[in-house]
Amino acid sequence: MVLDGLAASTATVDTYLVNPRRASVYGRRTFASVSEIPGLLDLAFILVGPEQVLRVVQECIDHGIRDFVVLSSGLGESSAYASDERKLRDICSASGARLLGPNVSGFVDMAHGVTLFGLARPDHLLRGRVGLAMQSGGLATHALSLCRQWGIGISRLVTTGNELGITVSDILGDFVDDPDTKVVALFLESVRDPARFRDAAMRAREAGKVVVAIHVGSSEIGKTSALAHTGALVGDHATAVSALEGVGVICVDSIEDLIATAGLLVRYPAGLPGNRLAVVAASGGACELIADSAQRLRLELPPFSENVLVYLTDVMPGGSTARNPLDVTGFVVKDPELTFRAVEGIADYALDAYDAFVFQSVLFPADEAVDDPAVQERFRRLGDFVRSMPIPLLLQTAGTFSLSPRVAELVTKNGLFVLPGISTGMRAVAAAVSSRKLPAYDPQAEPAQMQRAGIGPDDLTAAMRECGVPVPPSMIATTAEEAAAAASEIGFPLAVKLVSPDVAHKSDIGGVALDLGDAAAVRDAIVAMEEAVTQARADARIVGYEVVAMRPAGIELIVSVVNDPIWGPMLTVGSGGVLTEVLDDVVVRPVSLDPVRIADMLAHLRVSRLFPGYRGAPAADLEAVIAAIQGIVRLATRIGPAASAVEVNPLWVRGKQVEALDLLVEWV
Amino acid sequence: MVLDGLAASTATVDTYLVNPRRASVYGRRTFASVSEIPGLLDLAFILVGPEQVLRVVQECIDHGIRDFVVLSSGLGESSAYASDERKLRDICSASGARLLGPNVSGFVDMAHGVTLFGLARPDHLLRGRVGLAMQSGGLATHALSLCRQWGIGISRLVTTGNELGITVSDILGDFVDDPDTKVVALFLESVRDPARFRDAAMRAREAGKVVVAIHVGSSEIGKTSALAHTGALVGDHATAVSALEGVGVICVDSIEDLIATAGLLVRYPAGLPGNRLAVVAASGGACELIADSAQRLRLELPPFSENVLVYLTDVMPGGSTARNPLDVTGFVVKDPELTFRAVEGIADYALDAYDAFVFQSVLFPADEAVDDPAVQERFRRLGDFVRSMPIPLLLQTAGTFSLSPRVAELVTKNGLFVLPGISTGMRAVAAAVSSRKLPAYDPQAEPAQMQRAGIGPDDLTAAMRECGVPVPPSMIATTAEEAAAAASEIGFPLAVKLVSPDVAHKSDIGGVALDLGDAAAVRDAIVAMEEAVTQARADARIVGYEVVAMRPAGIELIVSVVNDPIWGPMLTVGSGGVLTEVLDDVVVRPVSLDPVRIADMLAHLRVSRLFPGYRGAPAADLEAVIAAIQGIVRLATRIGPAASAVEVNPLWVRGKQVEALDLLVEWV
Repeated sequence: MVLDGLAASTATVDTYLVNPRRASVYGRRTFASVSEIPGLLDLAFILVGPEQVLRVVQECIDHGIRDFVVLSSGLGESSAYASDERKLRDICSASGARLLGPNVSGFVDMAHGVTLFGLARPDHLLRGRVGLAMQSGGLATHALSLCRQWGIGISRLVTTGNELGITVSDILGDFVDDPDTKVVALFLESVRDPARFRDAAMRAREAGKVVVAIHVGSSEIGKTSALAHTGALVGDHATAVSALEGVGVICVDSIEDLIATAGLLVRYPAGLPGNRLAVVAASGGACELIADSAQRLRLELPPFSENVLVYLTDVMPGGSTARNPLDVTGFVVKDPELTFRAVEGIADYALDAYDAFVFQSVLFPADEAVDDPAVQERFRRLGDFVRSMPIPLLLQTAGTFSLSPRVAELVTKNGLFVLPGISTGMRAVAAAVSSRKLPAYDPQAEPAQMQRAGIGPDDLTAAMRECGVPVPPSMIATTAEEAAAAASEIGFPLAVKLVSPDVAHKSDIGGVALDLGDAAAVRDAIVAMEEAVTQARADARIVGYEVVAMRPAGIELIVSVVNDPIWGPMLTVGSGGVLTEVLDDVVVRPVSLDPVRIADMLAHLRVSRLFPGYRGAPAADLEAVIAAIQGIVRLATRIGPAASAVEVNPLWVRGKQVEALDLLVEWV
Repeated sequence: MVLDGLAASTATVDTYLVNPRRASVYGRRTFASVSEIPGLLDLAFILVGPEQVLRVVQECIDHGIRDFVVLSSGLGESSAYASDERKLRDICSASGARLLGPNVSGFVDMAHGVTLFGLARPDHLLRGRVGLAMQSGGLATHALSLCRQWGIGISRLVTTGNELGITVSDILGDFVDDPDTKVVALFLESVRDPARFRDAAMRAREAGKVVVAIHVGSSEIGKTSALAHTGALVGDHATAVSALEGVGVICVDSIEDLIATAGLLVRYPAGLPGNRLAVVAASGGACELIADSAQRLRLELPPFSENVLVYLTDVMPGGSTARNPLDVTGFVVKDPELTFRAVEGIADYALDAYDAFVFQSVLFPADEAVDDPAVQERFRRLGDFVRSMPIPLLLQTAGTFSLSPRVAELVTKNGLFVLPGISTGMRAVAAAVSSRKLPAYDPQAEPAQMQRAGIGPDDLTAAMRECGVPVPPSMIATTAEEAAAAASEIGFPLAVKLVSPDVAHKSDIGGVALDLGDAAAVRDAIVAMEEAVTQARADARIVGYEVVAMRPAGIELIVSVVNDPIWGPMLTVGSGGVLTEVLDDVVVRPVSLDPVRIADMLAHLRVSRLFPGYRGAPAADLEAVIAAIQGIVRLATRIGPAASAVEVNPLWVRGKQVEALDLLVEWV
């Protein structure tokens, strides 16, 4: 297998095989050591076991080699040779050597016809515009195979493995500068140099190149902020995805979606202008499947206007109902022009109602038929037709397919790309639309990362007020009597909450009493609370009891800022209160004070359906909500690195009233 | 195209072409009319335009033909010839003729080598155990093409179109009796004879045959019960899916999932024993993708036990971490036995911890290599290995693929099936697991359909009590004074609700007053309410004001019974109260009084996460909740056909207290 990879590149590169145990391998001469190879060498492709890597690399360096691809796995991943990986880094940096790996499969460079690849490389790969970078080398073969099956050409594939030297961020940067590459597709496990990645991604945006990525690990529970609810809600994967989307990267969920989306974006690097689709297919079932996935993916199928309906009823056969999605029925077998006429009509009469066509009328010929002039002409015309359309016309088949090399050539030489089936195809369309929607990330607009010397637990309430976090009237009492007095000032009904630096979720151990209607009730509550708390947590220090005004039912949000070790401060907004865990209704983004970005986050929450007012409750004051969230961001910034998480839950909203009813700070 | 289909079947069937306009077509003699054809004919395959269908069928009947496949579309679907479709039904039943269609693509019978198919039929289809029935003929070619790509053999494909004669339920019944067919895959748009379908599905269960289906139309809004919340929440598609699942049909969302699941179930017709998977793959990235989709699909990957870890650490190369999913790393290229040893170890030491293996170590050979003895041996051994396993060992690749005919033959002749990629593959695994989970449907246990003479709007409260629907203490008052008096009896706080036969959602027009603390408040509320209501809805008759005890915060459910025109009474349980629309947290099933089935519905709700008690609230009394839901089912049954929907929202739950706080009956 390894030799296949090497052999494939000998056309353009002189390769020498090194193997101390044999004089020849696969009929080719081998050298006992690198030092025996005559002349200067550009690069060493190393496949030895982990125990030999250090020695071999050193030998190569001594022989003047400065570029390395190290396939060998078992260094950093295993305890046995972890130290060797560190040494490897040292000797490379000492000699200025550049290293790809270890634990990679190598790379495939279609532009220069150079393949240094340790796994099976599918035949008949097409040279094209997609740059592939994968942190997992093991899946590279399958990614390439999907490209081949769907007729998607690539400029280069690079696997980065343990990233001892070159990282995926470096490769992304290269792709931005590579004239061959229009679209970058990334398979990410963990970005090791987020700042560098952000810069490269921003440069890609400016260069008009689009980046689509799959970030694996959604099944891992969040390691950061396990204590705060945010940890359970968001987790490191969602954080990474949000951070990626924050710099304009399109994130997808499967390797099929990754490749299909990349193939589509090659034709439309700026993404699709919007989500309003006109669909023309030759099957009622296909139309229904398309409508179903469109709805799941929040793509719109606006109904045809009156003049379009008139036109269609005129040109379509009896039995076809003129609606979007349009089924031109089996008559298309008799009259292949039907679908084209339908599209032309819609384009003529109602173009501004749609952002793109989905066109399901592609029949791939059998290999034998590819040279048939009629077939050649059909695809030439199809290419012209697509290019003649003022808005994107997206070709799609009903089920996924695998193009033979000859058919793939026929399709691509006419500048065509066909979406592989309805489910993968429609997800690719949705991803291409989202690329337009992503809010441009402006680091300037963001607050400084949490670096300033923080404030301590004691000045929290004051800090909340100063930062503009609205809070309900409250007082801290140390005795039941004080509390009762405070209560009468604040007014009823009210709640009493334990104040203790040692207890996070007070209510779980009886540290919260609600609906207290008079002073007596307050007194009794505190006596009971003291007893309950000391029973449940003898160690818990009782600083006092917070007497706080109680609020009627309202909309409850959770708002938190978590200082992610990789991506920095991330803002989370979601359904709060009791429903926090029930709803899984949460949005996380790089922290921001920008009201537009915060409003966009709120708009993504299911709970925001309650904002216009429900069952007689007043409409929520969106500006007040945004202002409160800005206040919480300021508070977190003020607290600084002393806290790993600052969480308000609930942020209570009723009409114009917005108040942080509970604050949890997770001190480092 | 049509001729391709016909030609393919001439091997076993004598066919005659009829075409009045030409003496020959594609070099074959044609007859001007059916009557000219000598001898008795079995079946007529009709491709004429809609306007000619009636005449041609009549002519065939006169000529003694009694079996018809009518491809022609444009009859029932178009207003122009709708009446012809009705006449067609009449002349067929009058002469005892059997009709498939109109608006079909015909059928492909692999067992008897008979193909009467109007669309392109992929070459190299394999004969096998999957019976395919599709109401949409247009997608048949793509379904067959997926079978070919993935090496899945079929017994028969039948398209049923407008189902003027033979319906999809008939075909399902045939498949149950067909010895060739083990698994039935259905593409459904709308089941026209649900009772017949239910019977066939139950017979399939008894015959040990499994049915998997995709039912399109999830994007259509519910037509039934638009007034009640249930309509917006559930819709006709969810109802159909629930009804199908109620009789043991596995429902999937895409045509790829349909075919892949069918292919898997051929090997495991009883479904997979459970959802605990041990995964062995040769790529870290693949392991992460598998773990991610496993989590999305609620499949479990239990960690390896201590003795398995010891074994693996021993046999695995350095650098591979022993965990589930297991990445045997690139070393597998050097030592292909690695993956097998891993599986054997897990099977030896921890078999009972897992229900199935997912085994990602299949390399398909190139066509040229298929005859290579080593390759032949490799696949023979793989087949033996799979069969030697006491639990299912599911082969899977990282990305989807398309097998060449020769490779497909190699794979199938060794009794192997390979899941096409991780995303489709894992969804198929989840579907195969669910087939075991589906609760067996027992019509006997269900209440009679809503047929008994119902009761009217006036006796509702009494009926609720008699049926065992718990309600809070309340009284109906007609004046503010009466209400105030009633209030003092019931106790405070309480609510006042408008009683009017004309208003469904009272709160929207100020017909509900909450949190009334004393008699004066009640008086004022009613005065205000009368004014608000008459302003908003002058036409609304005010029968009186219900004074009802108010309940503190609790868990709120929505429970409804909707009489579906196709599937009969369906029970819906979901998150209720204000959150009904916000949560989309709802389960619908065929109506049932069985406490086990009701408990299973509750277990599927996100809101049930609150049942164990939250933030100091008491744990919900599940039995009391189930009893209340049974009461609502009884009430709906009692009301009978007079109502299209009976909806309680909220059903309020706090500890042992369960009360229906609001009832909405949608009278026919």
